Amino acid sequence: MDSMTLIAITSIITAGLTIAIGGIGPALGEGRSVAGALASLAQQPDASSTITRTLFVGLAMIESVAIYCFVVSMILIFANPFWNYVIAQGAGG
Amino acid sequence: MDSMTLIAITSIITAGLTIAIGGIGPALGEGRSVAGALASLAQQPDASSTITRTLFVGLAMIESVAIYCFVVSMILIFANPFWNYVIAQGAGG
Amino acid sequence: MDSMTLIAITSIITAGLTIAIGGIGPALGEGRSVAGALASLAQQPDASSTITRTLFVGLAMIESVAIYCFVVSMILIFANPFWNYVIAQGAGG
Amino acid sequence: MDSMTLIAITSIITAGLTIAIGGIGPALGEGRSVAGALASLAQQPDASSTITRTLFVGLAMIESVAIYCFVVSMILIFANPFWNYVIAQGAGG
Amino acid sequence: MDSMTLIAITSIITAGLTIAIGGIGPALGEGRSVAGALASLAQQPDASSTITRTLFVGLAMIESVAIYCFVVSMILIFANPFWNYVIAQGAGG
Amino acid sequence: MDSMTLIAITSIITAGLTIAIGGIGPALGEGRSVAGALASLAQQPDASSTITRTLFVGLAMIESVAIYCFVVSMILIFANPFWNYVIAQGAGG
Amino acid sequence: MDSMTLIAITSIITAGLTIAIGGIGPALGEGRSVAGALASLAQQPDASSTITRTLFVGLAMIESVAIYCFVVSMILIFANPFWNYVIAQGAGG
Amino acid sequence: MDSMTLIAITSIITAGLTIAIGGIGPALGEGRSVAGALASLAQQPDASSTITRTLFVGLAMIESVAIYCFVVSMILIFANPFWNYVIAQGAGG
Amino acid sequence: MDSMTLIAITSIITAGLTIAIGGIGPALGEGRSVAGALASLAQQPDASSTITRTLFVGLAMIESVAIYCFVVSMILIFANPFWNYVIAQGAGG
Amino acid sequence: MDSMTLIAITSIITAGLTIAIGGIGPALGEGRSVAGALASLAQQPDASSTITRTLFVGLAMIESVAIYCFVVSMILIFANPFWNYVIAQGAGG
Amino acid sequence: MDSMTLIAITSIITAGLTIAIGGIGPALGEGRSVAGALASLAQQPDASSTITRTLFVGLAMIESVAIYCFVVSMILIFANPFWNYVIAQGAGG
Amino acid sequence: MDSMTLIAITSIITAGLTIAIGGIGPALGEGRSVAGALASLAQQPDASSTITRTLFVGLAMIESVAIYCFVVSMILIFANPFWNYVIAQGAGG
Amino acid sequence: MDSMTLIAITSIITAGLTIAIGGIGPALGEGRSVAGALASLAQQPDASSTITRTLFVGLAMIESVAIYCFVVSMILIFANPFWNYVIAQGAGG
Amino acid sequence: MDSMTLIAITSIITAGLTIAIGGIGPALGEGRSVAGALASLAQQPDASSTITRTLFVGLAMIESVAIYCFVVSMILIFANPFWNYVIAQGAGG
Repeated sequence: MDSMTLIAITSIITAGLTIAIGGIGPALGEGRSVAGALASLAQQPDASSTITRTLFVGLAMIESVAIYCFVVSMILIFANPFWNYVIAQGAGG
Repeated sequence: MDSMTLIAITSIITAGLTIAIGGIGPALGEGRSVAGALASLAQQPDASSTITRTLFVGLAMIESVAIYCFVVSMILIFANPFWNYVIAQGAGG
Repeated sequence: MDSMTLIAITSIITAGLTIAIGGIGPALGEGRSVAGALASLAQQPDASSTITRTLFVGLAMIESVAIYCFVVSMILIFANPFWNYVIAQGAGG
Repeated sequence: MDSMTLIAITSIITAGLTIAIGGIGPALGEGRSVAGALASLAQQPDASSTITRTLFVGLAMIESVAIYCFVVSMILIFANPFWNYVIAQGAGG
Repeated sequence: MDSMTLIAITSIITAGLTIAIGGIGPALGEGRSVAGALASLAQQPDASSTITRTLFVGLAMIESVAIYCFVVSMILIFANPFWNYVIAQGAGG
Repeated sequence: MDSMTLIAITSIITAGLTIAIGGIGPALGEGRSVAGALASLAQQPDASSTITRTLFVGLAMIESVAIYCFVVSMILIFANPFWNYVIAQGAGG
Repeated sequence: MDSMTLIAITSIITAGLTIAIGGIGPALGEGRSVAGALASLAQQPDASSTITRTLFVGLAMIESVAIYCFVVSMILIFANPFWNYVIAQGAGG
Repeated sequence: MDSMTLIAITSIITAGLTIAIGGIGPALGEGRSVAGALASLAQQPDASSTITRTLFVGLAMIESVAIYCFVVSMILIFANPFWNYVIAQGAGG
Repeated sequence: MDSMTLIAITSIITAGLTIAIGGIGPALGEGRSVAGALASLAQQPDASSTITRTLFVGLAMIESVAIYCFVVSMILIFANPFWNYVIAQGAGG
Repeated sequence: MDSMTLIAITSIITAGLTIAIGGIGPALGEGRSVAGALASLAQQPDASSTITRTLFVGLAMIESVAIYCFVVSMILIFANPFWNYVIAQGAGG
Repeated sequence: MDSMTLIAITSIITAGLTIAIGGIGPALGEGRSVAGALASLAQQPDASSTITRTLFVGLAMIESVAIYCFVVSMILIFANPFWNYVIAQGAGG
Repeated sequence: MDSMTLIAITSIITAGLTIAIGGIGPALGEGRSVAGALASLAQQPDASSTITRTLFVGLAMIESVAIYCFVVSMILIFANPFWNYVIAQGAGG
Repeated sequence: MDSMTLIAITSIITAGLTIAIGGIGPALGEGRSVAGALASLAQQPDASSTITRTLFVGLAMIESVAIYCFVVSMILIFANPFWNYVIAQGAGG
Repeated sequence: MDSMTLIAITSIITAGLTIAIGGIGPALGEGRSVAGALASLAQQPDASSTITRTLFVGLAMIESVAIYCFVVSMILIFANPFWNYVIAQGAGG
């Protein structure tokens, strides 16, 4: 197993697990938020604009965590600095 | 075990686990949201349009996390840059 | 263990585990949704059409996650690009 | 350990675990749905036809996840394409 | 360790674990359903026929998951195609 | 380690774990059912015959899962086809 | 490590774990049943005979699961067919 | 590592773990029962004799599971048939 | 690593883990019982003698499980039959 | 495996897992906060400005934990001092 | 690794883990008891003497489990019979 | 693998895991605190200044735990005394 | 790896884990106690002296468990008898 | 791997994990306390001084557990007696 293969394997596994594990929290958190928002809407329909606005801000904050994971996952697949270094080194070697 | 085989194996395992693990969170979160929406509908049927709209926005946000996982899984199977590199290298070697 | 065997083994294990693990979330989420729908129906029978419609949309969204897992599982068994490549390489070698 | 044995072993283990693990979610989800349906029936006996119908649709959706697992399990035992390939190769070799 | 022994060992372990793990979900789900049915009966004794009927349909659905596991377990012990193949091969070899 | 020893060891471990793990679910499920039945009896003593009958049907269904595990466990100890085959082969060899 | 030692070790470990793990479920299930019975007795002292009778039937059902585990555990220590076979073989060899 | 040492080690570990793991369930179950009994006593002091009697029967049933584990643990330390056999064999060898 | 050392190591580890793991259940169970007793005392101070008596009987039952573990732990440290046998054998050898 | 490869692999895995695991807590915590805020808004719409302000301060505090993880993850990928040292050493060696 | 080192290592690890793991249960149980006592005091301040007395008895019972673990931990560090034996043997050898 | 590489690898892994694992607790604790504060604000808007002040003190205390982890993580990456020692030793060697 | 290094490593790991794992229980138990005390104070401010006194006694009992762990941890770092023995032996050897 | 490297590695890992794992409990416990304090403040604003004082005492007690872990973590990094001994020995050797 040369360096290139090892880095490729590691990147593949990490890219998948990062978004898979990192997506559990945001999905559950958003589910809770949406359920809370719907319960609030049913209880106080007049405040729907405030509730909806607060919900969207909150969802954006929570989604940002999933986005972080997705960004790291994409970086590892398509813009991996370690991979680039090894490829460059291999090509110039 | 040559590089090609190792990358293929890793890609297969990661592709499966990514969507499998990454799908647990969204499925549970959506289940909670839908249950919350139905409870709200039963409590306040007059606000059904607001509730349904908020639910769909929320489901879309949560589903997006599952989509991320599915996209990563598909990339690993059908558009894997590491696999393509190794195949190209093997063909030209 | 040659490449072909390894890829076959990996595909079998991953195909099974993907649908097995990936099915837990949707099944639980749907169970919660259905239980919520039934509680809503008992509380507000007049809104049964809205409740049923919302339930079906929600079930479809949740089921989609299970479908993703099933699709990946089927791809790994019957349309595995890595397997096809190895078989083709072995036949033409 | 030759290829044939390895694929056989892997298929046996995966077939068992797929239905075993994959059956936990549907069984729990259906249990929740049925319990919810019974609570609804006790609360609103007049809506029994709507409740029963919704329950059966929901059970069918949830059972489908168990069916997916059972199908994959059966495919791995009785219609395993990797096993067939290896057997054919061994017979023709 | 020859092929025959390995397949026998794997079949034994998988047969046991399949029904053991696969039985947890149905048992818990049925326990919940029965508890729900009994609570409903206590609350609304007049609807006992509907409740009992719905309970039995539900129990049948849930039990089916345990049956799947038991069937796979029995197949692995008494009608294992991989074992039969190896025995036949060994006898004819 | 010859084949016979390996199969014996595997059978012993699997027989024990099958009934041990497989008994957790039924025991908990029956505990829940009985607790539910007792709560129902306290709430509605007049329906004791219906409640008791439903409880016994439910307990029988749940106990069946434990019986499956016990049957598999006994088969592995006293009527293990793989063990019989190996013993017969060893005696005739 | 000869066959005899291996089978002895395996039997010891399995015998202990079977009753240890298999006893968790029944103990918790019985605890729940007894707590339920006591709550019912406090709520409806007049139905004490029905409650006590139902409790004892339930406890017997649940205890049966622990008995299964204890039986398997005792069989493995004092009437282990695999051990007997090996001892007999060793004595006659 | 000769047979004797291996069996001694295994017996020590199993004896300790059997009572340690097997004692968790009964302790929790009894704690629940006692708490339930005390709540019942506070609610219905007049039924204290029935409650106490039912509690003691229940505690005896639950304690029996812990006793099973303790018995197996003691058997493994002080009356281990496998150990006795090996010692006898060693003495007579 | 000679027999003596192995048995000493095993005894040390098992002695510690037995009381450590085995003490979790009783401590939690007693905590629940005491909390239940205090809630009952606050609700029904007149029944304090009955409640206290029942609590002490219950605590004794639960503590017995911890005592079992402590006894096994002490036996393994100070009266270990396997250790004694090995020491005796070593001294007389 | 030379130093460079090892550090690259370690950095990739750690970068992914840090944001994946570290994102679970903040996502769940924010979900709880948002759900709490929405429930409060529905209960007391007049205090919406205070509630929203407190929510945003709280979200900022919780998000800071996710930011810490993201910063560490980015440092490990793009500004890893250990990687830089090894590269520099390799270039100058 | 000679016997002395192995026993020293094992004793250190076990001593630490025994008090660490064994302290979780008592700490949680005592926390529950104290919380229950405080709730009872708030509900029925007149019974404070009975409540406090019962609490202290209960805390003593629960603390005894932690003391057992601490005693075993101290024995393993400062009065370890296995260590003493090995040291004595080494000194006299 | 020389000392330098090993220390670098260890530092990278530990730095990531420390902030990742150590951030779960504070994030959940802060989420609970904020949710509690919002519920209190909705219930008693007049006490908003006291509630907000207490919340901020509490958040600061909880955040301090996350800060500890972040500090240790940063120390391990940028001011690692073990790394500095090894580098210094290597440079002067 | 000589004895000294092994004992040093073991002591470091155990010292850290003892206080880390052993601190979880007390921290959670104290959190529960404090939360219970605050709820009691809000409900019955007149009994604040009794509540506070009982809380402090309880906290002291719970903190004692954490102190045990801290003491063991400090002993392992600064007064480790096994380490002292090895150092003395090494110095005098 | 010489002694120095091993002790350095062990110290790094343990220092990180100690504060990471040991911080979970205090953070959750403090979150619970603060949430309880806020609920109490909302319910009984007049007792705010007593509540705040009790909260701060409790937070200090809980924080002390985190401080213990931080102290051990810092000792392992900056004042590690084992490391100092090895360095001194290496310098003087």
